[in-house]
Amino acid sequence: MTRTSLDHFNCSWARTIDVIGDKWTLLIIRDALLGVTTFSGFQRSLGLARNVLTNRLTQLVEQQILQKEPTRPGVDRYHYRLTDRGKELLTIMVAMGQWGDKWLFSEKGAPVEVVDRATKHTISPVSVTSADGRTLRLSDVTYRPGPGANEATLRAFDRALKKQAPPE
Amino acid sequence: MTRTSLDHFNCSWARTIDVIGDKWTLLIIRDALLGVTTFSGFQRSLGLARNVLTNRLTQLVEQQILQKEPTRPGVDRYHYRLTDRGKELLTIMVAMGQWGDKWLFSEKGAPVEVVDRATKHTISPVSVTSADGRTLRLSDVTYRPGPGANEATLRAFDRALKKQAPPE
Repeated sequence: MTRTSLDHFNCSWARTIDVIGDKWTLLIIRDALLGVTTFSGFQRSLGLARNVLTNRLTQLVEQQILQKEPTRPGVDRYHYRLTDRGKELLTIMVAMGQWGDKWLFSEKGAPVEVVDRATKHTISPVSVTSADGRTLRLSDVTYRPGPGANEATLRAFDRALKKQAPPE
Repeated sequence: MTRTSLDHFNCSWARTIDVIGDKWTLLIIRDALLGVTTFSGFQRSLGLARNVLTNRLTQLVEQQILQKEPTRPGVDRYHYRLTDRGKELLTIMVAMGQWGDKWLFSEKGAPVEVVDRATKHTISPVSVTSADGRTLRLSDVTYRPGPGANEATLRAFDRALKKQAPPE
């Protein structure tokens, strides 16, 4: 893993944002989750300049989100396949899609549905839930330093929350 | 809502990515979810140049994710508060944080824990679930055009999935 610009935040949000917080990176991940694996497939879907696409794919391989496999031995063409780490981005992407369906596409309905392969029913809304299964909204949660907190986390906590009212 | 560069995709993922798919925007949303509401609060937390912060806050207000309220009548200082649309970004951000905790911070443990305010227990992992409550992984889901699909969606579907193997 390359050292990235937001590492000093020591915050899972900041680190994740540093890895995937880019429009083209997120669109490549979307396509990979839809089943695209080839350079030409991503290019056809995104209409992206070759150098930009190469750059983003290289970063995603470095971040162990995609892995590069030759299509055939001795041929300079590759499949870009999601690693386990990459496959688990599904939750984030589904949450993004559902937020968009609700807040940006509510009149027309979802352009694309995510479907349970076994039953062909649409999936449930992704939500934040308590240990005992209640759905939690923003006003129901709070935050505390975890086992991986260090000085930087505590300072950031302090800076972010200093003199701030709690969210309503 | 301003017309944005990825509108032509007619895809909730692309539209959502267009609205929030930027590092600083995501970090501002993180801070807003943590309770930060003022320009100086965001600046203290992010160490961001004034013009960049102003630009991102203006975009978030235009996108109806934050709303700007004068701190007192007649004073040129504002609180930036999350709208309902903004508050529901919690799910995406929690999913991002949990992915980061698992894949980027696994040795040390989570730097920050999200806690159920009522019980003080840490929340459950956010997951994609079927209508009947089973946790679904990437290999368990598929996609189909929804009620809001148009020609562009169908073309994009076709382009993205053409000659592609399904994900393993």
